Amino acid sequence: MNTAAISEAACESAEHRLRDHHRIVLLTDGFSSPFLAKTAISMLRYRTADIAAVLESNVQAKTAQEVFNTGGDVPLVADLAQVPDADAVYIGIAPPGGNLPPAWRPILLEAIRRNIDVVSGLHDFLIDDPELVQAAEESGSRLIDVRRNRYRQIASGQPFRKGCVRIHAVGQDCSLGKMVASLEVDKGLRDRGHSTAFIATGQTGIMISGIGVPIDCVVADFVNGTIERFIRQNEEHDFLLIEGQGSISHPAYSAVTAGLLHGAAPDGLIYCYEAGREHVKGLQDIPLRTHQELLKAYEVVSNLRHPCRIIGVAVNTRTLSQDEAMAELERARQEFQLPVCDVYRTGAAELVEAALKLREEVLA
Amino acid sequence: MNTAAISEAACESAEHRLRDHHRIVLLTDGFSSPFLAKTAISMLRYRTADIAAVLESNVQAKTAQEVFNTGGDVPLVADLAQVPDADAVYIGIAPPGGNLPPAWRPILLEAIRRNIDVVSGLHDFLIDDPELVQAAEESGSRLIDVRRNRYRQIASGQPFRKGCVRIHAVGQDCSLGKMVASLEVDKGLRDRGHSTAFIATGQTGIMISGIGVPIDCVVADFVNGTIERFIRQNEEHDFLLIEGQGSISHPAYSAVTAGLLHGAAPDGLIYCYEAGREHVKGLQDIPLRTHQELLKAYEVVSNLRHPCRIIGVAVNTRTLSQDEAMAELERARQEFQLPVCDVYRTGAAELVEAALKLREEVLA
Repeated sequence: MNTAAISEAACESAEHRLRDHHRIVLLTDGFSSPFLAKTAISMLRYRTADIAAVLESNVQAKTAQEVFNTGGDVPLVADLAQVPDADAVYIGIAPPGGNLPPAWRPILLEAIRRNIDVVSGLHDFLIDDPELVQAAEESGSRLIDVRRNRYRQIASGQPFRKGCVRIHAVGQDCSLGKMVASLEVDKGLRDRGHSTAFIATGQTGIMISGIGVPIDCVVADFVNGTIERFIRQNEEHDFLLIEGQGSISHPAYSAVTAGLLHGAAPDGLIYCYEAGREHVKGLQDIPLRTHQELLKAYEVVSNLRHPCRIIGVAVNTRTLSQDEAMAELERARQEFQLPVCDVYRTGAAELVEAALKLREEVLA
Repeated sequence: MNTAAISEAACESAEHRLRDHHRIVLLTDGFSSPFLAKTAISMLRYRTADIAAVLESNVQAKTAQEVFNTGGDVPLVADLAQVPDADAVYIGIAPPGGNLPPAWRPILLEAIRRNIDVVSGLHDFLIDDPELVQAAEESGSRLIDVRRNRYRQIASGQPFRKGCVRIHAVGQDCSLGKMVASLEVDKGLRDRGHSTAFIATGQTGIMISGIGVPIDCVVADFVNGTIERFIRQNEEHDFLLIEGQGSISHPAYSAVTAGLLHGAAPDGLIYCYEAGREHVKGLQDIPLRTHQELLKAYEVVSNLRHPCRIIGVAVNTRTLSQDEAMAELERARQEFQLPVCDVYRTGAAELVEAALKLREEVLA
């Protein structure tokens, strides 16, 4: 059995495999800070029932809830042997640059030898690692690189179905809640009976929803075309909630952001920021641009492709007290004169309303 | 001899090889329209002395000048055998999507069997083609894929040397003269004794200058970082003329454009357009955005990273008569209130002056 060949086929159809996993061990061992472990945290939040354990031997706590503030009773384990019926190990971190921590190699080899699938969203691909590939060939374990792709689609710029309203989360920076805002508005619309889909564009979103495009790992000429095609494949829905990436002002990742804005041709944007964040995440000496500069940039760039407006604001208040958070939301309502939510603390109701209103406008 | 390994090493140091070729055959056979053959046309213009012939069997003409309006007496040949001392075949076209025309396979195989290097800027890599690789292993011919790269650099967003003034060509669309404008301003500054470098970002620019980054073929997360690093490697110059790609409004390629704008952090932009072009090249039903919309978008997006202004305009008047062209340049001066050149017809003097003025401002 040729694992490399299997994994190559899997890259375009990972959805058929990721949703098969129901006894997942999330691997964060030694990297459980909220910024690094964002993949694990989101998996705990949105695929709770499929998570068997978190492999994290460096903390005293016993449950995911204690460490990650989500996941409830999902246990922390120090060793894969503590989860005899595991069917997959998911690499639960998203470090800048996307490299595999060297200390994890023995853990992955143990999983593979036990015929447990390994799922990774890192830029370093599992199937480029001869030792892992050989072990997988011997055991039959599947190595699934969520970011791996060979997309070669050039965007056509053709209009989408008008009744398919596209709402895209954009932000002041990366890692501040764009994916969560999209997932919560998608859920809110579905709970009200609407036809809606979450369009994952990053490794964590793909692991959660089981399908999507790893847009930051697509060759630059094909970024716009890859998301455009994926949107077109989902045009039957009345709403698409499109996960954002980076920021139009991000020194490193703005190419990805611009490609999403034009490939997805959104009708509306949800602007996301984290209260109190002043510098670009991971580039501590570079100040963030102001909200007003960014709102202008998003409107200018998105409207080059398709008429689009900001429909609301999602604030991440994780560093604030409850009182401070409520004050920040009120301040934001005054500043932006738009619907404002903290989808974690107070739900996404106002953004769901804004999405419904946008669809009325688009169809009017 | 392992050609694949050689070619892989070559991709990061193609400069040591491309400038070694002095008896180049440009391959355009059957694709000599100006839009498709833009690589051949630019090679004829900027590496004239290194071009032995153009392989083009589908026209009656005898010289490059007759077909391409440049290249002087460089002969057209119908068969590689007519150039016994050829040292390289350069693929002279840049088709959308970048695929190798099937009819060219026998020509490339003949070249390889004669131990002639083959240089390609297509997205389809020569070294992924087992038949070509086997032939090259037997003959010792080198297969050089100019677009092939493994760049993994994340941008830092750190400032560049202030005295290194960065001027970037941007445009209303692709294929309208951004590279030529950069090359001509670079040449004009050099002719006046300034320290300057042309920063190639596309396959044709790399083939001309022998060095550069094939930015449209870099994985999206690393676009900004790859150009940022290349700029930093050339910071000793007083001027860098950075080739542009696509357009900030291009439905397919805006990701590349945005990444260049932020990775290169230009001090000044030269805005390029083609007189009379109304639709996106290759997407005939999509109207171009207006100059005013685009000037605004370029200023907004570039200033998110670094203070930047439009320093001048380069007009491509190739479809106009001489009188019409002069009228268009005058009209443009009125519209933009900026220095305006058609670098083909009237030279780049006004843009060179604008570059010198920009450097004074930056250093003031």
